[in-house]
Amino acid sequence: MGVDSTLVEALRRELGSDGVLDRRSQRVPYECDGLAFARQVPELVLLPRDTQQTAAAMRLLHEARVAIVPRGAGTGLSGGATPVEGGVTIGTGRMRSVLHIDALNRWARVQAGVVNADLGHACESHGLFYAPDPSSQKACTVGGNVGENSGGPHCFRYGNTSQHVLGLVIVTPQGEILDLSEPQVDPQGLDLVGLFTGSEGMLGIATEITVRLLPVPEVVETWVALFRSLDAACDATSDLIAARAEPSAIEILDKLTIEAVEQSVLRAGYPQDAEAVMLLELEGSEASVQANAAVIEPLLAVRGAFGLRRARASADRARLWAGRKGAYGAMGRIAPDLYVCDAVVPRRHLRALVRRTTEICSGKGLRIANVFHAGDGNLHPNISYDRRNPEELRRVLEAGDEMMRACIEAGGSLSGEHGIGLEKLSAMPWMFSSEDLAVMCRVREAWDPECRMNPGKLLPIRACMETRMRAPGAT
Amino acid sequence: MGVDSTLVEALRRELGSDGVLDRRSQRVPYECDGLAFARQVPELVLLPRDTQQTAAAMRLLHEARVAIVPRGAGTGLSGGATPVEGGVTIGTGRMRSVLHIDALNRWARVQAGVVNADLGHACESHGLFYAPDPSSQKACTVGGNVGENSGGPHCFRYGNTSQHVLGLVIVTPQGEILDLSEPQVDPQGLDLVGLFTGSEGMLGIATEITVRLLPVPEVVETWVALFRSLDAACDATSDLIAARAEPSAIEILDKLTIEAVEQSVLRAGYPQDAEAVMLLELEGSEASVQANAAVIEPLLAVRGAFGLRRARASADRARLWAGRKGAYGAMGRIAPDLYVCDAVVPRRHLRALVRRTTEICSGKGLRIANVFHAGDGNLHPNISYDRRNPEELRRVLEAGDEMMRACIEAGGSLSGEHGIGLEKLSAMPWMFSSEDLAVMCRVREAWDPECRMNPGKLLPIRACMETRMRAPGAT
Repeated sequence: MGVDSTLVEALRRELGSDGVLDRRSQRVPYECDGLAFARQVPELVLLPRDTQQTAAAMRLLHEARVAIVPRGAGTGLSGGATPVEGGVTIGTGRMRSVLHIDALNRWARVQAGVVNADLGHACESHGLFYAPDPSSQKACTVGGNVGENSGGPHCFRYGNTSQHVLGLVIVTPQGEILDLSEPQVDPQGLDLVGLFTGSEGMLGIATEITVRLLPVPEVVETWVALFRSLDAACDATSDLIAARAEPSAIEILDKLTIEAVEQSVLRAGYPQDAEAVMLLELEGSEASVQANAAVIEPLLAVRGAFGLRRARASADRARLWAGRKGAYGAMGRIAPDLYVCDAVVPRRHLRALVRRTTEICSGKGLRIANVFHAGDGNLHPNISYDRRNPEELRRVLEAGDEMMRACIEAGGSLSGEHGIGLEKLSAMPWMFSSEDLAVMCRVREAWDPECRMNPGKLLPIRACMETRMRAPGAT
Repeated sequence: MGVDSTLVEALRRELGSDGVLDRRSQRVPYECDGLAFARQVPELVLLPRDTQQTAAAMRLLHEARVAIVPRGAGTGLSGGATPVEGGVTIGTGRMRSVLHIDALNRWARVQAGVVNADLGHACESHGLFYAPDPSSQKACTVGGNVGENSGGPHCFRYGNTSQHVLGLVIVTPQGEILDLSEPQVDPQGLDLVGLFTGSEGMLGIATEITVRLLPVPEVVETWVALFRSLDAACDATSDLIAARAEPSAIEILDKLTIEAVEQSVLRAGYPQDAEAVMLLELEGSEASVQANAAVIEPLLAVRGAFGLRRARASADRARLWAGRKGAYGAMGRIAPDLYVCDAVVPRRHLRALVRRTTEICSGKGLRIANVFHAGDGNLHPNISYDRRNPEELRRVLEAGDEMMRACIEAGGSLSGEHGIGLEKLSAMPWMFSSEDLAVMCRVREAWDPECRMNPGKLLPIRACMETRMRAPGAT
């Protein structure tokens, strides 16, 4: 049992030799995702081409009782694709086909490894788009987005991935295929598709995904406004929401992020005297965009916004977005590693929590840059650090924990879009009672009684062990 | 064990004597829901006042190994609240408090027994509304809507109940309380709230529900248009969608429904020469409603629409809606019982499937009236019948099965909003493989290993028995 030469040979027969990576040099690139401080090289990497190959491989791994770690593009930020407990990584990198687009009924079916932005391009000629737009959308996969229930700037208006998944083909940990791919308005029976979305690779692997598409709005207008303080930008966000001015995205970048962007090749043209940059997007008919603009502009002015730029042509809009979309890359200039935190706070506490997280980090001598989805209260305090410095890494992790506790105390939650993964495993009991966690563990074991799928993620081991000791349903 | 005097006494101590209905005359009103041909008087009816009382009662029922049937207002149409296998009904009729409204963050927390329309009224003064609007909204409860993942006319634009549930307090079959009531944009851990929504009382009882609220649009305009054929109304629907004219609701009533409405006290003023009535609703800013109207009116005219009426004031709008909202009541004039079918078809097949369902019924000598959510392809062929005539009832059930098969063959699904319940239990294997059903059964048993919650609904017994015989995860 385990990964031995017999298993490798059997897998090669199913996937072909280019579908089985066993040399160490081939496996090292799969040792982590965007949570750079946690690393473990998988024992084997498999790259199936379709559902059938995935199922064949998972049947063999089931017989051999080997742990399985699903992986999209490895852009995740909570360590979900890191094989911390060893085992075999199954990547979706060779499942890149857009299988079908039904333009009238507005859905598409794709293989799990299709890159988020490629799905967008495939829909363009139909005048449709796929709403979830993680900052990593040029690299991340639709399958990874399903695993993490990913968000993005436009999720303020359109909701996270789970609001856009209409069907799935799932391979179970035992290698069985569940074809739940028909697009469903009202899921029939128990909603396995809804349960699977955001389950972070604990229940199986989704190989095909049916997603909702939306009509491209008549007009899309991007705004960039500058503020003399981060507080003012936060207050302007609250004002917009209270006044029901409804842009489809409200993003804020702070001073340190602006500097990083301006010092990088991007040069978005943000002036140095701006303490915060706000990006807005307005969508709809010509008439409604104009009406909305007439509400928004004075509200920004009240909070001292200046240097307003507006763009409609897609090349011009892309230029305004470039600073936001490239912010993480630009921060790479500040230090070798970046810890991208993710937490949600009630919007009324936006300003206070942005201040609090900054204080926590500066108190520990850490540099924090804020780039965040202000509209839905989804903070991203980003800490630049060097993971080779163990003392600094310790301070980073402590700051992460303290920020998380502060957000939860304010009525917020652990994650807006990056998932729990490894990173927030120990924080789950801060949000959930032992009864809550026990039900999650039993639901997980209904799919995977051996807990071979992505072990060491999402659910604290102790919760699952306690559940096993207590027979379910016993009084 | 079972319902004996010791149990009844213990329950009275927890719920008070007015919370325990044991006399037959008190229990008979709970013998069925809107699926009138299936009836069974529960052994006992409990009416807890809150989460704590519900949990106390469920702990006692767990110790006594008694089956539990949750019930809202009993307006369901698939038999979900009928205690077919006996046991105790727990009604939410005394849990009617709106607990909290957070206007800035746009959510409300209510007890499960709050009537859907009452939640709407409670939000009005904040300029907010709750989107799901089942036709029974003046009677049905938010808890029942969660159980069935209910829809309604405006779900074309806003999605079914599951898109609006942000949190739940759940009492498990063992009487434990899971407090998952904090509103979550991105559910943390496994999405128990998403799984529970639409689970038709199989996993426990939701006692408190946190729902998303939406800002009331600046303008709401209701249109009624008449057509000389049902085909023309269906084609106009397809045209509107293809042209991306986006009303928030598109409803169609056919000739038989029009006649029933006009002969009832409602008298909506639909002329007798109309073969179909279309109701539309346009929402948004003044500018966007006008722009949308300019697109929609000529599209309707192309299909021969006549007698167009438009209204904005809420009393006038209510008059236009009265015929639609009162259609089911009006059909009560045609025959004592009404079998309200519910199926979804791809919108491109709308016209063909409306014809096909009519043929199936007329071929069996049955009268069919169509009232349906045309926008999302959600058909409601309604058969008027008398359940006391067993031969007629047999034809009704046969027609129901045939219509369902026709919809599934066309790529549709079993239910748009009414759930599976008793009614469509035997049709589940038409949609799902034995592997799909086995995973659903195991997930159910993760919550309820004894299958005491709402037995005989949603999941075919055979599927669950087969699952038990096969150890989960065995090769």
